[in-house]
Amino acid sequence: MSRATVSRVVNGVTSVDESIRQTVERAISSTGYLPNLAARSLVTRRADAIALVLPSESRIVGDPFFTRIVRGVSTVLRPIGVHLVLMMTSADTGDQVVADLRQGRLDGVILVHTYQADPLPSLLLQSRQPVVLSARPAEPIPITYVDVNQTAGGALAAEHLVARGCERVATITGSLDRPPGHDRLAGFRDAMAQLGQPDVVSVEGNFTRESGAAAMEQLIAEYPDVDGVFIASDLMAEGALPVLRKHGRRVPDDIAVVGFDDSSAALSCDPPLTTVRQPVEDMAAEMARQLLRQIDRVDTPIRSVIFEPILVVRQSA
Amino acid sequence: MSRATVSRVVNGVTSVDESIRQTVERAISSTGYLPNLAARSLVTRRADAIALVLPSESRIVGDPFFTRIVRGVSTVLRPIGVHLVLMMTSADTGDQVVADLRQGRLDGVILVHTYQADPLPSLLLQSRQPVVLSARPAEPIPITYVDVNQTAGGALAAEHLVARGCERVATITGSLDRPPGHDRLAGFRDAMAQLGQPDVVSVEGNFTRESGAAAMEQLIAEYPDVDGVFIASDLMAEGALPVLRKHGRRVPDDIAVVGFDDSSAALSCDPPLTTVRQPVEDMAAEMARQLLRQIDRVDTPIRSVIFEPILVVRQSA
Repeated sequence: MSRATVSRVVNGVTSVDESIRQTVERAISSTGYLPNLAARSLVTRRADAIALVLPSESRIVGDPFFTRIVRGVSTVLRPIGVHLVLMMTSADTGDQVVADLRQGRLDGVILVHTYQADPLPSLLLQSRQPVVLSARPAEPIPITYVDVNQTAGGALAAEHLVARGCERVATITGSLDRPPGHDRLAGFRDAMAQLGQPDVVSVEGNFTRESGAAAMEQLIAEYPDVDGVFIASDLMAEGALPVLRKHGRRVPDDIAVVGFDDSSAALSCDPPLTTVRQPVEDMAAEMARQLLRQIDRVDTPIRSVIFEPILVVRQSA
Repeated sequence: MSRATVSRVVNGVTSVDESIRQTVERAISSTGYLPNLAARSLVTRRADAIALVLPSESRIVGDPFFTRIVRGVSTVLRPIGVHLVLMMTSADTGDQVVADLRQGRLDGVILVHTYQADPLPSLLLQSRQPVVLSARPAEPIPITYVDVNQTAGGALAAEHLVARGCERVATITGSLDRPPGHDRLAGFRDAMAQLGQPDVVSVEGNFTRESGAAAMEQLIAEYPDVDGVFIASDLMAEGALPVLRKHGRRVPDDIAVVGFDDSSAALSCDPPLTTVRQPVEDMAAEMARQLLRQIDRVDTPIRSVIFEPILVVRQSA
């Protein structure tokens, strides 16, 4: 049996003749031969694995945003054979991730959806390990992140609602202890003020469908004459639209609605959502590239990348 | 500096004094010292990593079912430090996964949501690598799987609708080329026939919210007098309920609706969904345990585990 043939079987090439494959399989089983990439890792000092670390709350993984992150990161990692390890945070995640990095089981980390008091970014920074954040950190620490221009996105929504002629505009925000929630509101408010409507009403949600429904119930009850709403995620808008229907408000005729994300939720809304698009797949691919750059060179300078949002006009506004 | 202290820093224990930690960090950086688990892997022949392989269609990762799988698998893998590697299938996934297994980069594979012509189960079986399926395979091959008793679940839905007094019952099915779609329909039909309603109307969906909405539109148009519907996933029911509302049908007074899964979608439905619960977290934990058993002993016998479903009664039926 030639070395090339054994190699083809070991490497899972499926075009090998079945009887040859079985002979090689038997030889592997009986001798215990196993070409181990662990040996290669000892030389390269690479695990060829990076972690995607997510908040543990159930809602994140079920979020269309997460699907787009995984798809974008995979387009970069898959062709070069780097594994994507999924981790949900718990009390000891920081220690575990740092240990995995030090022990050569991981080469780097992408942190998704960090929150205000999250100790992980600083912990990874201190340990001088490759790390990229999926958004601007809540505290100004020197760390590489990839983000969309959140305030510009909020401004796009404001301009569109005012251009439509909306005069009593409100907003349902995301979690205000997370930079995306805070910044979308800030950009929206500033732009509304410049457009002559400084007193915008806001109700806080937490980026989930359920919170969008609850916030819209509150908004309709307290401000029944609202005629335009910027909802800071498509998923919240998907929760809010049935509430408007239940109260007999037509969208966009009685109330115009603008979402944020342009996720799959925007298309499954009825009517389809006008929304601020963030190019999440491209952003995620950039996170992977930035991380690989740090893994290649320990002293790679901090370099954050900001993508510009665009407004996608459909039927809701 | 004691060996124990260095070990504590390397293993990411956070209680180490800050100045000591920095000294050790500097020493590590300047000497390039790195205790590499690749060395350990050479001895143990373990990657301490398993793959969760998913269909590539966008909808799966955004599905609440997937969140529950990840959570359940993690409860078993995390305490023993085994990594969960996320892979979405593409044309070369089979070859890549087999190569990763043979080269010691993965110890085993959990396949989620395989379809009728999926070559992966047979490929992994042939290569004699540890593998567990998340449901009965479409073809009867000798492979370990964990499933819920799908036909019993369909029967629970039938019994509940008939017990409520529904007389013109229909069903919206999942993809019929996947065993869960096929088996839920078979169990529902058989039970309905035994209960005296052999002619149940069915419309095929594909387990997504959108397909549930489209199927309900078709059902209402073609069979306007339907008074009870079994919808084979909560996500499809979530898409179908607004369609009923749009056509002025009250749930459950005009039409009773029973879902399947008891996922987070069941609770966010309006009204909250009566549904057939499959204990996905427990099932996923069992998948992980079955896989670890195979990894421990190559010749572990095939052993599939079937969980029993229960009916969770809320407001929709």
